[in-house]
Amino acid sequence: MADSFGQRLRQSWARSDSALCVGLDPVRERLPSHLSQAPDALLRFCREVVDATADLVCAFKPNIAFFNAEGAEEDLERLIEHIHAAHPGIPVIVDAKRGDVGSTARMYARELFERYDTDAATVNPFQGWDSIAAFAEHEGRGVVVLCHTSNPTSAWLQEQPQDDPAYLKVAREMQGRDVDNLALVVGATFPEQLAEVRRAAPTLPFLVPGVGAQGGGADELRQVFASGVDANGQGIVVNASRSIIYAGTGKTYAAASRQVAQDLRDQIRRARDRRQT
Amino acid sequence: MADSFGQRLRQSWARSDSALCVGLDPVRERLPSHLSQAPDALLRFCREVVDATADLVCAFKPNIAFFNAEGAEEDLERLIEHIHAAHPGIPVIVDAKRGDVGSTARMYARELFERYDTDAATVNPFQGWDSIAAFAEHEGRGVVVLCHTSNPTSAWLQEQPQDDPAYLKVAREMQGRDVDNLALVVGATFPEQLAEVRRAAPTLPFLVPGVGAQGGGADELRQVFASGVDANGQGIVVNASRSIIYAGTGKTYAAASRQVAQDLRDQIRRARDRRQT
Repeated sequence: MADSFGQRLRQSWARSDSALCVGLDPVRERLPSHLSQAPDALLRFCREVVDATADLVCAFKPNIAFFNAEGAEEDLERLIEHIHAAHPGIPVIVDAKRGDVGSTARMYARELFERYDTDAATVNPFQGWDSIAAFAEHEGRGVVVLCHTSNPTSAWLQEQPQDDPAYLKVAREMQGRDVDNLALVVGATFPEQLAEVRRAAPTLPFLVPGVGAQGGGADELRQVFASGVDANGQGIVVNASRSIIYAGTGKTYAAASRQVAQDLRDQIRRARDRRQT
Repeated sequence: MADSFGQRLRQSWARSDSALCVGLDPVRERLPSHLSQAPDALLRFCREVVDATADLVCAFKPNIAFFNAEGAEEDLERLIEHIHAAHPGIPVIVDAKRGDVGSTARMYARELFERYDTDAATVNPFQGWDSIAAFAEHEGRGVVVLCHTSNPTSAWLQEQPQDDPAYLKVAREMQGRDVDNLALVVGATFPEQLAEVRRAAPTLPFLVPGVGAQGGGADELRQVFASGVDANGQGIVVNASRSIIYAGTGKTYAAASRQVAQDLRDQIRRARDRRQT
């Protein structure tokens, strides 16, 4: 890829004037009944959500687990092809949280970047830089490293030890690599830690889960932007999945997804602009 | 599943008198030329290795990354079906190192335990018990948690902080859950840490990578058994992948794999028996 992931993300922020990322986590049982029995139900459902929200987002984040559970790898391949063809310039971040070393990591990088042709992938840092290097070697592909996740038990290892917690080690290490393809996952549900991560990693983009179905609301969004933006007032990708893709039921579900996505994009803009005044 | 993973593993150790696990990491470019162009080359290659080594092992460990990179999910499904049908009672541990929370973790558990019908899966603990619970809820399926991995940069997060490192927290937490389906990944390349993990987790089985292509030899094996066995002199599954599956080339590759596997099984037995005398 000619540009870095960072460049593509900045172009996407500028074009969309949006920091919203729609996460695509399709569960067959939750799909509208006119789709749920189709062999390519996951593809068809996600494609409609994508087409209904593409002008509102800076990125899409399909979650590979939901496709793997169904044996729907081909749906995921075709979904990503569709996003690139119909909505060029919108980065696709595959949520995979892969982590392994050496020859195995190279296989995962090949899977995520070559087979699925994604712009970026989430990876797990527990095995050290070894487990990230094979991804980072793919020129122009983004590597979004788990730093402080949004879930209740994330502190258990990530906040140890208190005087120099793992999540800040991760942030410093990735910032120190100074590669315009690295980014961090930092949950909206831990606003103080997010502020610390920004101080440790002044230029890296943050993928911020934890908004919507995971509980983060307007207050969290304000805090995310108050303390999480980079020196350019950017650097934030706010992900929401279930609150958007399951906003409606029946044949009009995509319109309902669009409405919730638009409301959230506007709420994110207000959080961002409030910071600037 | 009627029995626990721990029970099935103990039965397998007793029946095979072996602590060897053969890892199945097939790379198309490395396969014998009479196979490498076949559409189901990965399946055919691994099936021959499995059939040639089944009486020498206590477990098989297919690595899902190698199948995912090739789009060979169906090969993996059929390979595991074959192991269960042709070699009943040998546990299949899928190396996946998955880690995510809530609804996503449930999807990975469904993928690994239901779609692929594996006996156990490796998981990554970086996101806390949240990210392990969805796997542990599958009755009778094994959850093999990364504790201290065998790669060069594993210390970076796993050995922090020095006075109570993450890998010992992982060991204590899993031992404390007292579930006969939990196990730990502890690399042979860090023998002192492996001894500490055994003190922290007296009854959990260890999956021990790092032998063979990763550098661990007879000395490491002796240390693994000297300090790593449980109170019954068991509790160890030694994995070797590339040194076995790529032992030969051409049409006799499976016989070469068998020879190397047999030598390693015997070397492991000597390491084990030396401890007992």
